[in-house]
Amino acid sequence: MTLEKEIKDHYLYGHKKFLRHISVDCVIFGFHDNELKVLLLHAAYAQKWALPGGFILKKELMDEAAKRILKQRTGLDKIYLQQFHAFSDPERSTKKMNQQFLKNAGAKIENSWMFERFITVGYYALVDFTKVIPVADNISKSCEWFNINKLPEMILDHRNIFNEALKNLRMQLNFYPVGFNLLAKKFTMPELQKLYETILHKKLDRRNFQRKIMATGIVKRLNETKKNVAHKAPYYYTFDIRQYTQALKTGVAAFVGRRPIKKNGL
Amino acid sequence: MTLEKEIKDHYLYGHKKFLRHISVDCVIFGFHDNELKVLLLHAAYAQKWALPGGFILKKELMDEAAKRILKQRTGLDKIYLQQFHAFSDPERSTKKMNQQFLKNAGAKIENSWMFERFITVGYYALVDFTKVIPVADNISKSCEWFNINKLPEMILDHRNIFNEALKNLRMQLNFYPVGFNLLAKKFTMPELQKLYETILHKKLDRRNFQRKIMATGIVKRLNETKKNVAHKAPYYYTFDIRQYTQALKTGVAAFVGRRPIKKNGL
Repeated sequence: MTLEKEIKDHYLYGHKKFLRHISVDCVIFGFHDNELKVLLLHAAYAQKWALPGGFILKKELMDEAAKRILKQRTGLDKIYLQQFHAFSDPERSTKKMNQQFLKNAGAKIENSWMFERFITVGYYALVDFTKVIPVADNISKSCEWFNINKLPEMILDHRNIFNEALKNLRMQLNFYPVGFNLLAKKFTMPELQKLYETILHKKLDRRNFQRKIMATGIVKRLNETKKNVAHKAPYYYTFDIRQYTQALKTGVAAFVGRRPIKKNGL
Repeated sequence: MTLEKEIKDHYLYGHKKFLRHISVDCVIFGFHDNELKVLLLHAAYAQKWALPGGFILKKELMDEAAKRILKQRTGLDKIYLQQFHAFSDPERSTKKMNQQFLKNAGAKIENSWMFERFITVGYYALVDFTKVIPVADNISKSCEWFNINKLPEMILDHRNIFNEALKNLRMQLNFYPVGFNLLAKKFTMPELQKLYETILHKKLDRRNFQRKIMATGIVKRLNETKKNVAHKAPYYYTFDIRQYTQALKTGVAAFVGRRPIKKNGL
């Protein structure tokens, strides 16, 4: 099937497969070189960047739809995924925008379920950067990581969806463990602290951080130190999977959020 | 229009007015006599209780739909409202359930947009109990307050929606000010503490609570004490509207959530 045929098919018959009016969009976070990054698609016909997203099959849970999309874009399953907000502006996606897209793609369609209004549900995902093999979808030129402080221009309301995802991740960080999916299997305490500082966009006190994170019980020290470092060799730590999984259900103490978190405060 | 005609109309032509596949449900919290309460409708044809809910008009923001429903059930506008989760189980509402409802209502319909799958978005609202005049909708016998620890049997997945709302309210309590919509204009520090304790379902230390809540700046002490009390007369306090409104945007310090919050831990 040619791309043009595929697009036409989706616009003309997609509603037989998917629910009308509802989509999901995924904000995929990765941590690398002390930077928090997000995975974006280059929407070929719009010349802008987009969050990976898609539609919900008629008998599919919304979480399953998000997982399917994540799997397609990253090659990974068993990703940590959190639904965070539904975006419902009636003008967030319009017939006009879709017709422009079709025109750029060389297709012409008069009526489509895609011209109707869409409410999109945002999910954020935390992934191991080193394990992701980014794969573009068929309407995108490429799939790339961006430093969250240097984001390119994005389509529709995707920048706002990203902002809300980051705000929610910061709030969640105070109640739920974060890190297992973002760090290597073993890590030093400074590496873990750097992850928290990068997400929260603020400095944390070293001793307080170590005391509080150890008090949660989700991290345990290994009997092994990091080699080839200039100063005193730091110990390696790892997550206690049993306690970590439990904390995902019940929450941990609110241990880093003492000061106000600024909205969109990057 | 008779009720039977109204119901038939909704099943046959509702999709011309509302979006398909999406609804909203509202968990309305009020605080009275040191009890946290929730407003429920007695679904006449199901003989069970239901959260107030409804559908989204074709050009309406989802938040506006929730406000419209709240206004109809409580008589209030300018209510504090928070979207918290979308529920997407394909079996949460089925053709069979709807046909049973229609049968009980004495109507018979073969095909309807209402038989299709619905994803519902949950909102919770915090209201001034004393100002609410509960109004049942046309398919309900009554609209009543229930203590959250003594809930009746509920339709569909409404009990689960309630549980998630409470979990989210507890989490939000650590970041956003709560109380303005739940308490009288002036209140004593023990009254405010009782509200927090009731929502969190745990005892808080009196001096720590007072210190932390004053540190947020959202509360100010009035130069007036409560009359007719047996012991030392406590001061009245009120919310600082400017600071409170600011804190709704930027968050306050995480000041009561030091210990784990148990999931559904009522």
